[in-house]
Amino acid sequence: MQAKTAFSIIKLTVISFIASALIACGPEKQSEAAGDTAVQKTYSWKMVTSWPKNFPGLGTAPERFSKMVDDMSAGRLKVKVYGAGELVPALQVFDAVSQGTAEMGHSGAYYWKGKTPAAQFFTTVPFGLTAQEMNGWIYHGGGLELWQELYAPFNLIPLAGGNTGVQMAGWFNKEINSVEDLEGLKMRIPGLGGEVLKRAGGTPVTLPGGELFTSLQTGTIDATEWVGPYNDLAFGLYKAAKYYYYPGWHEPGSMMELTVNKPAFESLPKDLQVIVTTAAKAINADMLAEYTARNNAALTELVEKHGVDLRALPTDVLNKLRDLSKEVVAEVAAQDPASQKVYDSYIKYRDSVVKYHAISEQAFINARDEKKAPL
Amino acid sequence: MQAKTAFSIIKLTVISFIASALIACGPEKQSEAAGDTAVQKTYSWKMVTSWPKNFPGLGTAPERFSKMVDDMSAGRLKVKVYGAGELVPALQVFDAVSQGTAEMGHSGAYYWKGKTPAAQFFTTVPFGLTAQEMNGWIYHGGGLELWQELYAPFNLIPLAGGNTGVQMAGWFNKEINSVEDLEGLKMRIPGLGGEVLKRAGGTPVTLPGGELFTSLQTGTIDATEWVGPYNDLAFGLYKAAKYYYYPGWHEPGSMMELTVNKPAFESLPKDLQVIVTTAAKAINADMLAEYTARNNAALTELVEKHGVDLRALPTDVLNKLRDLSKEVVAEVAAQDPASQKVYDSYIKYRDSVVKYHAISEQAFINARDEKKAPL
Repeated sequence: MQAKTAFSIIKLTVISFIASALIACGPEKQSEAAGDTAVQKTYSWKMVTSWPKNFPGLGTAPERFSKMVDDMSAGRLKVKVYGAGELVPALQVFDAVSQGTAEMGHSGAYYWKGKTPAAQFFTTVPFGLTAQEMNGWIYHGGGLELWQELYAPFNLIPLAGGNTGVQMAGWFNKEINSVEDLEGLKMRIPGLGGEVLKRAGGTPVTLPGGELFTSLQTGTIDATEWVGPYNDLAFGLYKAAKYYYYPGWHEPGSMMELTVNKPAFESLPKDLQVIVTTAAKAINADMLAEYTARNNAALTELVEKHGVDLRALPTDVLNKLRDLSKEVVAEVAAQDPASQKVYDSYIKYRDSVVKYHAISEQAFINARDEKKAPL
Repeated sequence: MQAKTAFSIIKLTVISFIASALIACGPEKQSEAAGDTAVQKTYSWKMVTSWPKNFPGLGTAPERFSKMVDDMSAGRLKVKVYGAGELVPALQVFDAVSQGTAEMGHSGAYYWKGKTPAAQFFTTVPFGLTAQEMNGWIYHGGGLELWQELYAPFNLIPLAGGNTGVQMAGWFNKEINSVEDLEGLKMRIPGLGGEVLKRAGGTPVTLPGGELFTSLQTGTIDATEWVGPYNDLAFGLYKAAKYYYYPGWHEPGSMMELTVNKPAFESLPKDLQVIVTTAAKAINADMLAEYTARNNAALTELVEKHGVDLRALPTDVLNKLRDLSKEVVAEVAAQDPASQKVYDSYIKYRDSVVKYHAISEQAFINARDEKKAPL
């Protein structure tokens, strides 16, 4: 557990590393619209996040949430967004909201697996659900209720707060032509994905965030995963790695979380409560739309302007990783009764939706593709 | 144009046909929460729809919209939802909202191609965008702005209001084993899909809605498309057709629309305006999640309980339909300058997102599938 948590810290530390470059881009939108409905009680909330303010996708979503809530409440509920490290460090978002230091947080549930292992199912699972499928489970498959039950002992109400879609497999300086090439591969990869790589003979590596770029250049690590083109272009990893591999088998639809301190939520009148939960639904969808619309332009720039060598992971490598993922995910379920309960719901839903999508989303996407025999 | 409009009418008429059975299920939610914030002005709006009240997915979404808006506005904005035919017929939603008979409507943009042909791009296009891709275009690809520009002369503000995901190819009493089997095929299929079938040698047929079931049974038609298992199960077409074909090449992600009468929208204070647009975003995502979570159970019941023969359209048939779809869609663009403008934006975005999804959503979904060589 310690090692895996460390990987997560690295990912977030690296994000913090570029915060300084981006933080100047974050206008203080909350101060624009002064509340003028003096007859009703107003609320001034803080939202701590695990991202730099206005970081593309991850950081723009909480700003949009704040703006929507401000507008819908006519200024009665102000939510001031803090970037990682501004009020609390990136990985203290859960604790800060749990303790009421901040009323809300925007982060990723898999960072809290040290608190409750089942949290990992509420971000992403290797070879698990896509974004669309995840939303089905959360909103109409019992997922949200299980998640709220899981977080209740921590004084937290979780809400879906965005999705990156399918990520990339990552940046590599070593070609992956067979399963054997994973042996000894030193790669920075967090959570369940890192555990899967380890079982394939690879070495998940822990590194201070600031050393990531240099470590790729000097060969201290052979590879690192990140998010996808829209985020990766800004981060500049193409300058330190030869190959950009797909698909992101380890994070096929990473859902972000909004957390609300329970007493704070309950202190709101009902209209403001529903404003909070509805704005969460809106940004959950909006972030995915943003990544969907932006990724290709970024990928094109990476390939055409920066000469990135885009490659597919070989079939036998993906097959091996898929087999190992099943073992790793099933072992999470065995960690505690809460994990078993969430796993059972997740797997039952997953089997069902994957079966249907074989004849709908998957069949259609392949039928649309002129280069592929569809069915 | 007349013939194609007629097909749309049939689809809606058939929906109306089952309205009587479902209408009793529609609780009058609007009357529950009486407004008690007497200090502020309250608004009582009507929303006309093209579906029976509480029809699964299509009809539950407007009810959820109404509830969210009621809750978020603390009863200041009441939106009473009317099923098809209750206030105006299904296909008069556009006119009713345009003229202010109702302040809002929930329907499908492709029904209004007689008003403005480009409207068709805002529901679905054969071999076009999936739901996730459509949301990228609408919210972050310029689609919504084009749509609002298109509807402005009609006094309407359109908003995305739900998505069915990939539909099914439909119910058939004739096997489709080759392109030749499409020749002479009498099928009820609306809009651009019907035009494509016609060019493949098929005969899109027009029928009064109440005759659809009987027509399938007696052989007056060979086939009909509908939506997908979640809706099709309730409709009982499995009793009149032998084969259930996939995938829904003609409707790969049908987006519903909410329309707002422009003067009515502009009469709202800003907080209520943002409440309306945000609730629309929430139900746009929620409907897709509902279909995603519900379709497989319905399909399983159709296959296992009712013995439906589930079949894939052959590859050469799909290839032919894809080629013909390109021609048909390009011809819509040539109808007027507005259509050309929307087509150009749609195709540019489509080419971009499809290219990226080849290495992300498509590559991942295939890699997840143990029965398919992934890449």
